[in-house]
Amino acid sequence: MPVTRKDIVDQVLRGRKANLTAEATAYAPANIALCKYWGKRDGELNLPVTSSLSISLGKFGSKARFAIGGNRDSVTLNGRVIDSTQPFAQRLFAFLDLFRPAPGAHFQVNAENTIPTAAGFASSASGFAVVVLALNKLFGWQLDERSLSILARLGSGSASRSIYTGFVEWHAGTSADGMDSYAEPLAETWPELRLGLLVVSGAEKPIGSRAAMKRTVETSPLYAAWPGKVAADLAELKAAIRAKDFERLGRTAESNAMAMHATMIAAWPPVIYWLPESLIEIRRVAALREKGVPVYLTMDAGPNIKLLFLDKDADAVQRTFPTAQIIAPFA
Amino acid sequence: MPVTRKDIVDQVLRGRKANLTAEATAYAPANIALCKYWGKRDGELNLPVTSSLSISLGKFGSKARFAIGGNRDSVTLNGRVIDSTQPFAQRLFAFLDLFRPAPGAHFQVNAENTIPTAAGFASSASGFAVVVLALNKLFGWQLDERSLSILARLGSGSASRSIYTGFVEWHAGTSADGMDSYAEPLAETWPELRLGLLVVSGAEKPIGSRAAMKRTVETSPLYAAWPGKVAADLAELKAAIRAKDFERLGRTAESNAMAMHATMIAAWPPVIYWLPESLIEIRRVAALREKGVPVYLTMDAGPNIKLLFLDKDADAVQRTFPTAQIIAPFA
Repeated sequence: MPVTRKDIVDQVLRGRKANLTAEATAYAPANIALCKYWGKRDGELNLPVTSSLSISLGKFGSKARFAIGGNRDSVTLNGRVIDSTQPFAQRLFAFLDLFRPAPGAHFQVNAENTIPTAAGFASSASGFAVVVLALNKLFGWQLDERSLSILARLGSGSASRSIYTGFVEWHAGTSADGMDSYAEPLAETWPELRLGLLVVSGAEKPIGSRAAMKRTVETSPLYAAWPGKVAADLAELKAAIRAKDFERLGRTAESNAMAMHATMIAAWPPVIYWLPESLIEIRRVAALREKGVPVYLTMDAGPNIKLLFLDKDADAVQRTFPTAQIIAPFA
Repeated sequence: MPVTRKDIVDQVLRGRKANLTAEATAYAPANIALCKYWGKRDGELNLPVTSSLSISLGKFGSKARFAIGGNRDSVTLNGRVIDSTQPFAQRLFAFLDLFRPAPGAHFQVNAENTIPTAAGFASSASGFAVVVLALNKLFGWQLDERSLSILARLGSGSASRSIYTGFVEWHAGTSADGMDSYAEPLAETWPELRLGLLVVSGAEKPIGSRAAMKRTVETSPLYAAWPGKVAADLAELKAAIRAKDFERLGRTAESNAMAMHATMIAAWPPVIYWLPESLIEIRRVAALREKGVPVYLTMDAGPNIKLLFLDKDADAVQRTFPTAQIIAPFA
């Protein structure tokens, strides 16, 4: 019988004594992958085909206050009650099913995103990470970070990385139950590193990232070359971080994102997240780089652009991209 | 010592008696690949990594009148004298060096393209094919089509296919001298098939296709999966042509073009021929297809779109794409 999410939760919590508190508050940062998570080997457990590496967005992420009570689950996001029929609520409540202390127990959740949700930046990573962190406090499980990362991964793959700050590597693992598929922080910091969030469109995506990933793995003939690309890029990125070689970091991250989009474009039907405006910004980044400013980009499963650069070039970047929201991940 | 273009010309013409005429006129059609030629295994001889399959554009192509004479080569294109320092003239004269009957002999060339050159549609395929066809007449070599295809390939890879009309397959071959790398026509015709040329931009390309191909082969990690994709697509296309299964043909051709662009996007630096307007048209094609009109697209190393559809849908296609120039390849 295949392993279920519930099996893994039971395994992680085995022997833990719940010590329920009235309410618990937690925070988890969003993260941007420099080497992408693209493709699952197990859809139930969110086990990835490859490892990945991200940088945390520091104070941009998700806060949540959890309490047990009421006669049904309820969630507010940024002060507004979310209807329980909405996909966001449904996915959250289904995840909470894994953790109810008794069949009739319900959760009251107050969540707040400090990263603009509507702007198309993924909030599921920080969202599922903060749920796990809050539940750990609420129930007094005192789980270690590795266990928290595994539980967060069951909600959303990239949430496994949002348990930590700074540079984070999610090890793909090889076991069928995914107990070796968790994230860990790298020791290095890089205070001069900057990210620039460039919102290209808040429009609805043509296809969700979960479905796009599945279609790519199943139909893209170029996907076969993706694991090898990831292995090479992970080694490059870690070497670049150790050596504080920014151009090596930027080039590798941009190349990785482009290759991920390329695997989608070769899927059938093609998955094209780029909007005309995305192409304009991609060309603008290349043009600024040609003028001598070391700026690179990464993109996730959507049309928005994330710029990568160093503190010393922040003014030049902001002049070319006046709407970019600049983030210092290590501040 | 590596084999040179001159070696191949000498080999093909060995034993042929020249029977010079005063002047000779020839015509070669342009062609659009349904399965692309992307990547060389030999840059000197234009030997491809994979086979490819195209459809001829019938009366859209290149005409040329050749004569021997004068004290230097001269070429007019569409009635205008081309300066000998221009890349087009330089590339032509270097090709003609392979065929001079005596060191001091020069060629007078009058060429005309019936396909809009400035619109970014490749004219090198029909261009080098017509040169070889005209020289064959001028010198009275009476070469067979296979030999003509090999000679045209030395000028430009895809010119090997422009020796013929209709569906044409260029066999990659395996030998180092490329004597097994030539094109042949398929027996099938498909009178209902239509192409629509959609000019997205006449702007200068950011990088020539020769350089883009080289960069892709050398730096794109996804290129490793390209030969397998081509092998599958060639089999699909030939089966679709035999069965007159248009959706199978269209889907395979579009998927092949997308995968080719994907290999480029994953190169470093990324090769992105798509303009914002290309993306708009790509989405428009998908939207028309969703409305039930079987229309597909292909793209070459540039921003323009080539639509594929059947005669019965010509009106619907023309309404959605009023500027498209519709071509009946078998008319």
